[in-house]
Amino acid sequence: MTVEERVEAAIANRRETVNDAITEQLPIQKPERLYAASRYLLDAGGKRLRPAILLLTAEALADVEPLSEEYCSFPSLSDGEVDVLSAAVSIEVIQSFTLIHDDIMDDDDLRRGVPAVHQEFDLETAILAGDTLYSKAFEYMLDTGAPAERSVEALDELATTCTEICEGQALDVDFENRSDVTTEEYLEMVEFKTAVLYAAAASIPAILLGADDDTVDALHGYGLDIGRAFQIQDDLLDLTVPSEELGKQRGSDLIEGKRTIITLHARDQGVDVDGIVSDDPTEAEIDAAVETLEDAGSIEFAREMAVDLVANGKERLEVLPEGESHNLLEDIADFLIERGY
Amino acid sequence: MTVEERVEAAIANRRETVNDAITEQLPIQKPERLYAASRYLLDAGGKRLRPAILLLTAEALADVEPLSEEYCSFPSLSDGEVDVLSAAVSIEVIQSFTLIHDDIMDDDDLRRGVPAVHQEFDLETAILAGDTLYSKAFEYMLDTGAPAERSVEALDELATTCTEICEGQALDVDFENRSDVTTEEYLEMVEFKTAVLYAAAASIPAILLGADDDTVDALHGYGLDIGRAFQIQDDLLDLTVPSEELGKQRGSDLIEGKRTIITLHARDQGVDVDGIVSDDPTEAEIDAAVETLEDAGSIEFAREMAVDLVANGKERLEVLPEGESHNLLEDIADFLIERGY
Repeated sequence: MTVEERVEAAIANRRETVNDAITEQLPIQKPERLYAASRYLLDAGGKRLRPAILLLTAEALADVEPLSEEYCSFPSLSDGEVDVLSAAVSIEVIQSFTLIHDDIMDDDDLRRGVPAVHQEFDLETAILAGDTLYSKAFEYMLDTGAPAERSVEALDELATTCTEICEGQALDVDFENRSDVTTEEYLEMVEFKTAVLYAAAASIPAILLGADDDTVDALHGYGLDIGRAFQIQDDLLDLTVPSEELGKQRGSDLIEGKRTIITLHARDQGVDVDGIVSDDPTEAEIDAAVETLEDAGSIEFAREMAVDLVANGKERLEVLPEGESHNLLEDIADFLIERGY
Repeated sequence: MTVEERVEAAIANRRETVNDAITEQLPIQKPERLYAASRYLLDAGGKRLRPAILLLTAEALADVEPLSEEYCSFPSLSDGEVDVLSAAVSIEVIQSFTLIHDDIMDDDDLRRGVPAVHQEFDLETAILAGDTLYSKAFEYMLDTGAPAERSVEALDELATTCTEICEGQALDVDFENRSDVTTEEYLEMVEFKTAVLYAAAASIPAILLGADDDTVDALHGYGLDIGRAFQIQDDLLDLTVPSEELGKQRGSDLIEGKRTIITLHARDQGVDVDGIVSDDPTEAEIDAAVETLEDAGSIEFAREMAVDLVANGKERLEVLPEGESHNLLEDIADFLIERGY
């Protein structure tokens, strides 16, 4: 099997469990319109990559055969059981809340092939659905049955993560109006907006199961590294994948004038990135722009950075026992920069 | 001193401490626009009634002289200290988050005499400022230094409260499109939208300081009762106070066709509440409408309900030791239905 096939199989094996738990924990109850809106994006699909990382990390830590234990009564490292599935749902629900609010902020009409929540319902309901998922995520994270000290630590990680996601989104908006953004600032934005939720997904099972601080920190670092790599790969795909495969206009970041690690590097090499394409460019114009970025070494620069981050992230997994779950977490890291979509 | 003067003095004595803590715990840091927006409404004023209830409840429980103990190192009922000020800030920050998002949903332009956050900044920043305050509130509630078991319980109360506030807001929106709302449904909506945050303010100090479950439950009930009474009084004031004192058009609920306990009662008495005033009524028309509601017994019905709730709420305070803080919590209950604004 290729890395992609192994990763897809690993995620798929856990996706159904996560989806069942979402259906059960977040029923469409009164007020029905609110809960229908809260469930809408979750029901529209999604890979469930972050919950899969959380569950795989739990399995690697406990050194058990993949899928051999019930996630809702998962063996803690010392004694007792923890509902790591509830924690996995919490992370996915946070992701869903941020997407609903982000789509309002970016005025995006589509998400996962269906109308954004504020389009399918309305602005008020979308804001409120996001707010509901927000507190529900905290309820789920409080409901793992872990010892209180560990619950508090997991909640703290979750709350800090949410604050950082908001800060990352604010920085992203801010950068659109600035021409002097540095690559360091960009990477910090990516860390906050995207990577911290991967870090939470990888470190929270360690917290809940009672791993030591070094293990928690290493897994947090793994999440940060692969999360950053994930975003850089997204930036690369926008330039290098044909529109029909990408599902959106190739080079849309260039057209919209979005800062990415690629354009920031090119700007530092003297390329006029703001004028690199017209507002409504032909494919040939985009080809030429990509060639300019290649000539400036910017595409290679980004690719190397992503490769380094993934290598670094995989190294951090050394705190985990050897085994199939450990291998799958490495595969996920590789997959994030090998994927073509 | 009148009840109003005693309450105002009690709140004012604690307001400065709460405001100082907000300034310290929520500094305007990078990204500055985000934190400026997050602080904007908090800095625009507000009575700080809910944090005052939280601090007074802590003092009553600990049976100490009002203002005699440092709130950030407050004596727990058994041993150790708890930062109840951080919990008070958490409650106020939740209140502020809901106001920011509510103003977007209701498209209100003004709040506390200044532009609403989405007007002063923009929609995106207002959504994000609310989201930031949301997670910050959880951070503050995690930061009280209480034993982990109690922290978990307080967090649980906070998360459930937030979910219910969202549900209450959704019900409120839903009711605008329904003509068959019952008084029971209305009271449930008020409980969720308004009263649960009072209940959290009164019960969380008991949780954090280690009071027994009966005490926690009684204080929760006090909060629910006075919170419901507060909303009913708001509904009454809208009809009975001249526009210039009210700071908005008298009878605006009637003009907007909002359901209140008063109009729902009147409807049940056969009054045509939907046609009770025109879209742009004269003062005489509003006078006549109020007279109709009085004749139907609806105003008296609402007033009695508020009085009963306050009496009930004060009774629940019997779990607290006698003393000045206890008396002030009774005064606050009375004040909520005696206030003229």
